[in-house]
Amino acid sequence: MYTSLLRRNWIASILFVSAFSTTLNGADGDENERHERTLGVLIFPGFELLDASGPMEMWCNVGQKLKVVTVAAEAGQINSSQGPKIVAEFGFEDCPKLDLVLVPGGFGALKVTRHEPTLEWLRNRAKDSEIVMSVCNGATILAASGLLDGRRATTNKAYWKMSTAQGKNVDWVKQARWVDDGNIVTSSGVSAGMDMSLHVISRLYGDDTATRLANLTEYDWHRDPSWDPFAKLHGLISEQ
Amino acid sequence: MYTSLLRRNWIASILFVSAFSTTLNGADGDENERHERTLGVLIFPGFELLDASGPMEMWCNVGQKLKVVTVAAEAGQINSSQGPKIVAEFGFEDCPKLDLVLVPGGFGALKVTRHEPTLEWLRNRAKDSEIVMSVCNGATILAASGLLDGRRATTNKAYWKMSTAQGKNVDWVKQARWVDDGNIVTSSGVSAGMDMSLHVISRLYGDDTATRLANLTEYDWHRDPSWDPFAKLHGLISEQ
Repeated sequence: MYTSLLRRNWIASILFVSAFSTTLNGADGDENERHERTLGVLIFPGFELLDASGPMEMWCNVGQKLKVVTVAAEAGQINSSQGPKIVAEFGFEDCPKLDLVLVPGGFGALKVTRHEPTLEWLRNRAKDSEIVMSVCNGATILAASGLLDGRRATTNKAYWKMSTAQGKNVDWVKQARWVDDGNIVTSSGVSAGMDMSLHVISRLYGDDTATRLANLTEYDWHRDPSWDPFAKLHGLISEQ
Repeated sequence: MYTSLLRRNWIASILFVSAFSTTLNGADGDENERHERTLGVLIFPGFELLDASGPMEMWCNVGQKLKVVTVAAEAGQINSSQGPKIVAEFGFEDCPKLDLVLVPGGFGALKVTRHEPTLEWLRNRAKDSEIVMSVCNGATILAASGLLDGRRATTNKAYWKMSTAQGKNVDWVKQARWVDDGNIVTSSGVSAGMDMSLHVISRLYGDDTATRLANLTEYDWHRDPSWDPFAKLHGLISEQ
């Protein structure tokens, strides 16, 4: 669609694309540089749009060192809980090796907690991955898979009881923007996925990289995992 | 894919879906209630993922009073600047009447500033709409269309010079999370689109609705349009 425009204005376009991609995307211009890690974001019908796309904004901008892929039981267009569709580029069958896995929540999550192929896929992928993350009631899916047994974790605060019901053997933390339990990192509801992602990015790529991403996306990064006014707001704790 | 699961666990699923949709989505269960307004989110190759999906998270959760549609020059799967694709459900040709229009930014925005069909579409849609919004250098597209002539506006702070170059007749505000100029509301970079959206939602649907959405998405809503540490951080002002 924009081919002729690109040709006509190629200098301006290249300068602009280059400025954005070298700085915002952190790319160094070497298209062939090896991706050192691959992050897979699980997409399912009824996923919460910002649970997936907030973290993807941060992770995709890390640059060439990280490849981000979207994965669903079957590749294709998947409706978010909000309506807009995201494209899952891989199905479980053809998904590449994942170093990092991110599981969003959403109203579709409960159905996923009873979808054995997804739980089995998560258990298998977790064995070979460095870190498994969840956002909001994506933790309910991880709990259903057994991956949170004996682990510290958090989830959204507005639907706490429902979201934690699956995880009888989980040490659920009520007041936490996110809980870093080593190779499992879980965040509170929706927006908290961006703070958690920046935290994990800082673990893997350094604080400078995470800070740069937050500043370029003009994001007010909450760096303190105990910052969680929503635990009190939604009646989970009486003081803070 | 989940049909049998839904059938088997229909009570739990219905309760869960109902709890989420009545509260988070603000729906009142009447599927046939008329959408009082339709918001169109412009999607183009190289749009910034969070510029579009952050606001959509907020707007889609307003409930049945508002319908949100994604629109591109041609309907279909559109690559974001970050890689993940969103589906534009309408093309310019078949897009329904829009009461609200939201234009995201991204590195693909510069090409759009020279894509006359998009500029013409925006000018035409603006005539019939209540409010036109932009996020990040989506303002550069609005400036190119002439819609910002003689108006107050802002854009992202990291690429200020480049993003404001198109708008010689625009009163650009350097320090602003967003600028509300009546029927044109422009936000600063990427994440600022969520704050701006909640502001406009509060204008149209009341502060209670906007606050409820922020709390349910556990979003730390910056309610003050002059809150903008990024103007100083990116060297646009010497003090704040």
